[in-house]
Amino acid sequence: MQLTRRAFLQTASAMPASAFVSTSTVSSGPRVDAARLRAQLEALSLFGRPAGGRFEDGVSRVGFSDADIAGRKYVMQLMQAAALTPRIDAAGNIFARREGSEPTLPPILFGSHIDSVPSGGNFDGDLGTLAAIEVVRLLEAGQVRTRHPLEVVVWANEEGVAFGKPLFGSRVVAGRLAPGEMDEVWEGTRKSDAVRRIGGNPDRIADAERRAGSFHCYFELHIEQGGTLDRAAIPIGIVEGIVGIERFEAEIRGFANHAGTTPMGERRDALLAASHLTMAVNEIVTREPGRQVGTVGRIEVVPNAPNVIPGIVRQTIEVRDLSMSKIQRLVAVIKTRASEISQATRTEIGLRPLSHDEGAMADERVQSLIAAAAGALSLRHQTLPSGAGHDAQSMAALGPMGMIFVPSVSGVSHSPRELTSWADCARGADVLLHAVLRADEARFSS
Amino acid sequence: MQLTRRAFLQTASAMPASAFVSTSTVSSGPRVDAARLRAQLEALSLFGRPAGGRFEDGVSRVGFSDADIAGRKYVMQLMQAAALTPRIDAAGNIFARREGSEPTLPPILFGSHIDSVPSGGNFDGDLGTLAAIEVVRLLEAGQVRTRHPLEVVVWANEEGVAFGKPLFGSRVVAGRLAPGEMDEVWEGTRKSDAVRRIGGNPDRIADAERRAGSFHCYFELHIEQGGTLDRAAIPIGIVEGIVGIERFEAEIRGFANHAGTTPMGERRDALLAASHLTMAVNEIVTREPGRQVGTVGRIEVVPNAPNVIPGIVRQTIEVRDLSMSKIQRLVAVIKTRASEISQATRTEIGLRPLSHDEGAMADERVQSLIAAAAGALSLRHQTLPSGAGHDAQSMAALGPMGMIFVPSVSGVSHSPRELTSWADCARGADVLLHAVLRADEARFSS
Repeated sequence: MQLTRRAFLQTASAMPASAFVSTSTVSSGPRVDAARLRAQLEALSLFGRPAGGRFEDGVSRVGFSDADIAGRKYVMQLMQAAALTPRIDAAGNIFARREGSEPTLPPILFGSHIDSVPSGGNFDGDLGTLAAIEVVRLLEAGQVRTRHPLEVVVWANEEGVAFGKPLFGSRVVAGRLAPGEMDEVWEGTRKSDAVRRIGGNPDRIADAERRAGSFHCYFELHIEQGGTLDRAAIPIGIVEGIVGIERFEAEIRGFANHAGTTPMGERRDALLAASHLTMAVNEIVTREPGRQVGTVGRIEVVPNAPNVIPGIVRQTIEVRDLSMSKIQRLVAVIKTRASEISQATRTEIGLRPLSHDEGAMADERVQSLIAAAAGALSLRHQTLPSGAGHDAQSMAALGPMGMIFVPSVSGVSHSPRELTSWADCARGADVLLHAVLRADEARFSS
Repeated sequence: MQLTRRAFLQTASAMPASAFVSTSTVSSGPRVDAARLRAQLEALSLFGRPAGGRFEDGVSRVGFSDADIAGRKYVMQLMQAAALTPRIDAAGNIFARREGSEPTLPPILFGSHIDSVPSGGNFDGDLGTLAAIEVVRLLEAGQVRTRHPLEVVVWANEEGVAFGKPLFGSRVVAGRLAPGEMDEVWEGTRKSDAVRRIGGNPDRIADAERRAGSFHCYFELHIEQGGTLDRAAIPIGIVEGIVGIERFEAEIRGFANHAGTTPMGERRDALLAASHLTMAVNEIVTREPGRQVGTVGRIEVVPNAPNVIPGIVRQTIEVRDLSMSKIQRLVAVIKTRASEISQATRTEIGLRPLSHDEGAMADERVQSLIAAAAGALSLRHQTLPSGAGHDAQSMAALGPMGMIFVPSVSGVSHSPRELTSWADCARGADVLLHAVLRADEARFSS
């Protein structure tokens, strides 16, 4: 006999012990198996762990790498343990569907990614992926049948370290593949071959696209990566939106010459101009209130020798905010300043767009569901923007989207020092579970 | 029958036609063979020329490379054509001695180097080397016997691109090898093996040392590399001294974190701090009159990704001037400023000495000889400092030193666009010839 969702929530005391964290109060309903979730996060951390390292030494599981492929295999085994049958779509995303009781309803989609940045942490993506599988495993163990089908997803190459374009798998599903993107080459490998390596089918890449309305709603549990929740000691964040990103490459052309024989007044020093520009970006972004951020993260100097005045500098500039119009306004000021710096330093400065990312707002109804789930679990929560990009923003183009954040200790991420307490991991997974069950009852009229 | 130097100067009209540039006035004495000098500069440019390139495309003849070894072989053939027998010392320097008429006198030493920076020009070092051989060839052809022995030298690895320490060969001769220097590794090769590759004997490296007073005086003809002579349209520069150089590596430690999720107020951005420091070096060096220069030429950023706040930046800082005390004063101000920037940006900044180069003053008597030689040839001349380092500064520790500069078009050097007119090349070689002959008559009492 299978239970309905409602009966499941009401009869939680009849559930196997493994379905509860020991500290849970029975009245607020079922909980994920915190110990199992932790054990699986630790097991997944082995794929890409530095040689001889420990969990705390982080992970390098770049998309399409051997470590990524091994990690994906492990995750598919976990899916099978949850009575799911994984399939790999043309883009290399892993999907696993559990049927619901009403065959005509679209699925509730939830998941995350398992690829990492080099020397990254063991929570970014991993938590949302393993928690999604845990949710299904729990429902399976409790013989709970939802009305909507449930679909767990592991997105391919979210970080985009390989090939430089983030959110690969989810962009393909949203029909946002860039022109020529499959022919790009990274470290000697063509993207189409990389996708083939993880079981995708680049020849039929468009088959991976899904249409708007093809899912009931999308959830993603993720670590915050910033320090807002940690500072406030609030365990659950409800994402109001994912910031937009404008990214440029500034190319500064001066003139390379001998650092000993060229008088100061006759120099056209590209690095000096670049330093002005780096400081200008910081000054322009910080001189008004708000949560906007601006970063020069990457710089390349030619010829980059101690005794040669730098002739060419290329550096990235990115600006992020929830408001695209604020981003555009700040970028316009940066461009004006770049032009002034160019004149003052007798260099040429060109700004080439690298990427333009619109960001996405979370669906307010889905936000309310998450808030209700957290409330029912007596977990304090707050809304906040996501400063990082997530696959959820691709999904926002196709249907209602919501994200659950859990605290990152000291706001550290993309680092081996990335950390979320095991208790917070379990709390986030609990909220995911309850939000999925509440979404199963909800109707989203568009 | 051999002529004395004096007879040679007086009977120049009896010399073979090849010994004269066509425009020379016979009265001012012999001239080098400008056409032959040019042909040899062009021939030498083949060793390390970019594939499919022309003379104007410059040269990459890094010390100890295959191109360097091939170029050295060519130069040794030219020595033999000048009736010289080259020998390679323990450091890999090439020496070739022509006996004088008075066996007890020390030799007049002159020459330069033929190694280059990557994508360098065809005049830096090459001119002084080939002109030195040409001077001997001319004296040989004219059967002129000097009182002092003449010794031509080609210094090994002057640029120090390989292994990072300039003036290698001449420093060994001056007893200035750094502790452990022979065990340094560059691109997988130990320095001792590199020296062995060019015919040196690293096991007996100290055999290359020469004592103070072991030469009568040292001359080096070189392109200016700066734009002073070119701007003033003066063909001959007489170097008053070679600047000292203090070089540091600044290591700036901030904290690498996510560029999207870390608010501006919480960042410890190492590149932002580095930009402040780069601008500070420029400001400190330019705020007082003088010819001092300061350069940040090399920068390395970790992790150097568009979406990560830079955690570590390493950058070189160098300051040059004829006055070491001025250098030390400027460096002290830079250190103070670095400390202030460190506090303001919440980063740690450490300054590690990379190299300390005392520079050297040219001997005033040798400067006078060069001035007299230029005057006798009716060539306008001026004194100036050398902003670049030269092997001459190693030799200044052992005996009287002087350098002859010729104009660099637009002051460009360490670049394929490095250029000195053929006429100026010949004028410089003429001055070298006449300065050597005048030195042969001179007595330097110490």
